[in-house]
Amino acid sequence: MTETANFSGVIAPVLTPFGEDGAPDPDRFIEHSEWLLGDRGCTALAPFGTTSEANSLGIDERMDLLEELVESGVEPLNLMPGTGTCSLSDTITLTQHAIDLGCGGVLMLPPFYYKDLSDEGLFRYFAEVVDEIADDNLRIYLYHIPQVAGVGFSIELIDRLRREFPDTVLGLKDSSGDWSNMQAILERFPGFELFSGNERFLLACLRGGGVGTISAAANVNGAMMRQLFEAWQSDGAEEMQANVSALREALQPFPMIPVLKALIAHFRGDPAWAVLRAPNLALDPDRAVEAVRALVDRHGFRLEFTERV
Amino acid sequence: MTETANFSGVIAPVLTPFGEDGAPDPDRFIEHSEWLLGDRGCTALAPFGTTSEANSLGIDERMDLLEELVESGVEPLNLMPGTGTCSLSDTITLTQHAIDLGCGGVLMLPPFYYKDLSDEGLFRYFAEVVDEIADDNLRIYLYHIPQVAGVGFSIELIDRLRREFPDTVLGLKDSSGDWSNMQAILERFPGFELFSGNERFLLACLRGGGVGTISAAANVNGAMMRQLFEAWQSDGAEEMQANVSALREALQPFPMIPVLKALIAHFRGDPAWAVLRAPNLALDPDRAVEAVRALVDRHGFRLEFTERV
Repeated sequence: MTETANFSGVIAPVLTPFGEDGAPDPDRFIEHSEWLLGDRGCTALAPFGTTSEANSLGIDERMDLLEELVESGVEPLNLMPGTGTCSLSDTITLTQHAIDLGCGGVLMLPPFYYKDLSDEGLFRYFAEVVDEIADDNLRIYLYHIPQVAGVGFSIELIDRLRREFPDTVLGLKDSSGDWSNMQAILERFPGFELFSGNERFLLACLRGGGVGTISAAANVNGAMMRQLFEAWQSDGAEEMQANVSALREALQPFPMIPVLKALIAHFRGDPAWAVLRAPNLALDPDRAVEAVRALVDRHGFRLEFTERV
Repeated sequence: MTETANFSGVIAPVLTPFGEDGAPDPDRFIEHSEWLLGDRGCTALAPFGTTSEANSLGIDERMDLLEELVESGVEPLNLMPGTGTCSLSDTITLTQHAIDLGCGGVLMLPPFYYKDLSDEGLFRYFAEVVDEIADDNLRIYLYHIPQVAGVGFSIELIDRLRREFPDTVLGLKDSSGDWSNMQAILERFPGFELFSGNERFLLACLRGGGVGTISAAANVNGAMMRQLFEAWQSDGAEEMQANVSALREALQPFPMIPVLKALIAHFRGDPAWAVLRAPNLALDPDRAVEAVRALVDRHGFRLEFTERV
């Protein structure tokens, strides 16, 4: 392989649509993925993130969907699927599968069932994954979201993983919402590819040496984020960031996955898009109307799907 | 099926041994299971609990081990395997598999990746499992361990699940360590099969109408717990409980899964038993010696494996 992935920019953790039978719907999934990578601004995709309800999917469902996505023609080098589960063996299975499909990288949660884990135990877990896969094409991005996973990456653990696996552990998505943690990573590890998990910090992240954002809201607002990413050194960058942040702010009163799905269902005129898998739930219809109004009336927000209908 | 399971008593969440290749070791697993069900006092087994490192195992590894256990001749009606994962589809797969093997029940964690879930969302999750399995032989025991899972069962959710599925949702293992929660369940739901997740509350649980304990320490101390279970209405019950609790107390300074494995490794003279799968780690050798000394010297603790060697 001579080409290598370049994940800098705006990456969407792709929403997972479900069909009437409750199973993931590959057609809507591929359509949404292509739209995100089209003129909607995303540079790459991270299917099977938190926003994707990945941990509500079965291991087989995840592998099937990824295969369908690659078979549909999406360039696998632009894919960074989530492959971290609470089980070492399932994580190895998913990671091997992603590498076999040619994915440019993987985004790995730490094992998240057991709590109060030692850095040594977490280090050995990642070392076992790297040793077991034993492939130069393995590129791991760590996924730090301690408020959901209940397990995170300390600075010391990141340091050790980077030093031990400099060609494999390449970056981190920080979804902690804690800017001081991102600052510490940027200062301590120049060249380590930091993605802000929230686009509110996109400009600050880029100015600090980070490489972009992997953000839930990129499912609907990738274009504005991409514009900011391309022009972050320009005079208008602060204003662009303010606009990006204002839209995020407008989403915040609603639970994130449900509101994103409600918006896509509304603008596509496709109610099936609004469905989440239990234990997560769709927005109540009234709340969905409220969300659409808040975004459309106050922010002039629109999603254009006409080119694909 | 005319026989039905009766899970009252002392149930061990069976430790999972690993071989030199890092894979679960079915031979040691079966040997330990048979020992637990022999004269070691357990009335039934709950493989794939927290103590079993179940969430560090792959879906396939869990199914393979359960098949080997049933094929070895262990009565499946006495098995209550853990089948709850964070994924609806994997949970259905494991639960269906356990029922197909004739297991008397299943112990189900709530889906545990997403946090701050609504009772409605959790209810729908369990309802989907019950509807999908659609089998009179499905008997679900809920597994409440909020300090690890990050998600628990409220009294209202238990009430709704019991009312909606009275022949299916039969009981709960309470590992919260919160006696007031157990009291509330006992008082509010007579006939609901409550297991204390910690044998310190075994006598209190039985006196309050509960049915037994599903406890990590039953992997090494099932015999004393069984004695208490059989004689809980006798004069000596308080003293038996004090002895059971003292042994638990002696284990508490050590991390639970590592110390249990270290004790079995020591008394079996089989160092392989001490191994845990990452991210969990075995006790350091010094700590293991310390643990054995504390239990043997201060409590006269012994495990007798001679009959099986």
